[in-house]
Amino acid sequence: MRQSQLFTRSRREAPKDEESRNAQLLIRAGYVHKEMAGVYAYMPLGLRVIEKIKGIVREEMNALGCQEFIMTSLQRKELWEKTDRWDDRNVDVWFKSELKNGGQVGFGWSHEEPITDMMRNYISSYRDLPVYGYQFQTKLRNELRAKSGIMRGREFVMKDLYSYSRTEEEHKAFYDGVIAAYLRVFERVGLGNSTFLTFASGGAFTQFSHEFQTVSDVGEDIIYLDRNKKIAINQEVLTDEVVAQLGVDRGTLEEVKAVEVGNIFSFGGTKCEQLGLFFKDDDGSQKPVILGSYGIGITRLMGIVVEHFSDDKGLVWPEAIAPFKVHLLSLGADEAATKVYETLVAAGIEVLYDDRDARAGEKFADSDLLGLPYRVVIGKRSVESGEAEVKQRTNEENEMVAIADLVKYFVDR
Amino acid sequence: MRQSQLFTRSRREAPKDEESRNAQLLIRAGYVHKEMAGVYAYMPLGLRVIEKIKGIVREEMNALGCQEFIMTSLQRKELWEKTDRWDDRNVDVWFKSELKNGGQVGFGWSHEEPITDMMRNYISSYRDLPVYGYQFQTKLRNELRAKSGIMRGREFVMKDLYSYSRTEEEHKAFYDGVIAAYLRVFERVGLGNSTFLTFASGGAFTQFSHEFQTVSDVGEDIIYLDRNKKIAINQEVLTDEVVAQLGVDRGTLEEVKAVEVGNIFSFGGTKCEQLGLFFKDDDGSQKPVILGSYGIGITRLMGIVVEHFSDDKGLVWPEAIAPFKVHLLSLGADEAATKVYETLVAAGIEVLYDDRDARAGEKFADSDLLGLPYRVVIGKRSVESGEAEVKQRTNEENEMVAIADLVKYFVDR
Repeated sequence: MRQSQLFTRSRREAPKDEESRNAQLLIRAGYVHKEMAGVYAYMPLGLRVIEKIKGIVREEMNALGCQEFIMTSLQRKELWEKTDRWDDRNVDVWFKSELKNGGQVGFGWSHEEPITDMMRNYISSYRDLPVYGYQFQTKLRNELRAKSGIMRGREFVMKDLYSYSRTEEEHKAFYDGVIAAYLRVFERVGLGNSTFLTFASGGAFTQFSHEFQTVSDVGEDIIYLDRNKKIAINQEVLTDEVVAQLGVDRGTLEEVKAVEVGNIFSFGGTKCEQLGLFFKDDDGSQKPVILGSYGIGITRLMGIVVEHFSDDKGLVWPEAIAPFKVHLLSLGADEAATKVYETLVAAGIEVLYDDRDARAGEKFADSDLLGLPYRVVIGKRSVESGEAEVKQRTNEENEMVAIADLVKYFVDR
Repeated sequence: MRQSQLFTRSRREAPKDEESRNAQLLIRAGYVHKEMAGVYAYMPLGLRVIEKIKGIVREEMNALGCQEFIMTSLQRKELWEKTDRWDDRNVDVWFKSELKNGGQVGFGWSHEEPITDMMRNYISSYRDLPVYGYQFQTKLRNELRAKSGIMRGREFVMKDLYSYSRTEEEHKAFYDGVIAAYLRVFERVGLGNSTFLTFASGGAFTQFSHEFQTVSDVGEDIIYLDRNKKIAINQEVLTDEVVAQLGVDRGTLEEVKAVEVGNIFSFGGTKCEQLGLFFKDDDGSQKPVILGSYGIGITRLMGIVVEHFSDDKGLVWPEAIAPFKVHLLSLGADEAATKVYETLVAAGIEVLYDDRDARAGEKFADSDLLGLPYRVVIGKRSVESGEAEVKQRTNEENEMVAIADLVKYFVDR
């Protein structure tokens, strides 16, 4: 798209009350707008990043045979009382309100309860199992503090997946499949090398749950890393017994801060029993369905990517989730640049074209701040030489590429 | 997709407390799940319909040069107080809650205020204008009654577009462009012949606002129709003066019930003045930006399509928004049907394949209930004759088509 048409513009300064680096940069670059503490709106560039992350997650979920649906924000009190999670003493992040026609209503901070309740319409026999369903949902959580930018907000987008299985074996096979799919997601968004499958507390139902933790100085969790085995142990479960069980050497474990970007856990049959989701097995017996729950914080993932890759000049997007692949800058050569723009777009390459009437210095600084993977400069010299200056955002050096070869250059990578 | 994999299934009966025909059918067909009165979750088939409607609207908005973003559900009290729309005496559909760290927060039932406030970051000069931005947002409204199914809910999806213009002329030109784009949207979803541009009350800012009203017995509005001119007048503004002004003949106007599927209105400079959105014009003067607001109820549109086209056998989807184009039924000929399924999918045709182990009568009834545009039956006779039985949902007659020609048959229409 033409940058002159983009309604956002970059800012020198982030709002003074913004403490987090990810939100500071995203606001300065016009990707995000701060509505209030922990509540961010996504501007056109930011929405494109979210949609790309969602696209990757959706592909991986669909490849596992999962089906997408969308639940509601409004929540029934009676339902959450069944699992003892309505009371503020048990769940301290509820937003609640009063219905006009009487009674209380909650706003969804999680969706295990309504989805499991909904499945009672569709699951009654072993023939109906397994079922794997997911949604991208805006979660609302009444957090006391919200200082981590888009990494921990009061309103955020999450992909949550639920598995309903007949047996523990069936559950376990799918659970392992999700672990592999999640690792592919983190690999594809560029965090593969720094994200680790982490053993964490399993709560009442199983020994462990599993987290996906991205190593980061801004992390709120402490994990112990075995880089060779590519696994980690959350501080909360680090005991000699666990270390022995996982076959790692406590002496070589590396203590690091990390951000939880995904988590998966098993409920066994307990949750479905509480909510009345039973199935008739082939021997005629009634059994509770085995439930698994699997989350990825979409906006949090965007935030950690910013924290992880950005530098002192601005954002740096991995190509798979960049809002555009190419940032094309015209430096006083609008006719030639426009031709390049049209050619690249016609070839299916995503281009942000800085066609604004602005100084070269401003365009370069903006380009670094916006952080698209490739910068292509068409200047007055390009018209004579027939060459464009191409630079990767992660690279210091320019490369001269014949304008006639640009499509091939970008299609091939 | 294979119907045996789809987790929803059809039901003979809708919930007893469901009064509206659209929700009854959508629930019975497994498109929608009722969470509570006026609050519906969208199951895989229903979500596909929503995404197709959004896709059509998105195309038309982008063609007008509009940019997509997404605002937040959580709303600041201070902001809405500026326009006097926080108080429950002025706006009676707010959901409100308390923040953990003090103060009240609202849940977005409309977004003019936050979007206009957000634009203060990006608009300060005439050079920044015009700006056209839109979102697909889940709106929350504390309705006292919710008896119209997905047509008027407490939680629903809306496309809302806002235009920020320098002058009244610029505003008017865009406003007229939106009218044309909206008419294209209603045409594309199949409601073109029954949806009319309707002159309605303009409120404080202009003489008229414009609604898009679809003629329907379930409508809550009364409009007066001039079928030749393809315009209508809302009851609320029907006066001799208005009739004369619009050049219609009161004697020939047809009184009908209708459902409002879209509305657009002008705020002049008033709203931006209240919220402090001014721009510096080229003569150095400060002026309030001219605001226009344009809505289409996405889930409501889905509801009226159901009301409009469905028959006593079930849903009937116009092809442009059907979850799948073809419903392929195997009647005891799974091998041949699976081959057809794979061939059609490989050709890019969207197919729901009823591969279930079920009786023919059940499959036919389900197919009518689900309402996909084309039904293709592969039975035992097909294997011998090499022909499939093809029937349009809106047609009584079957047609025999050679299996080898099916791809061509569907690609061509």
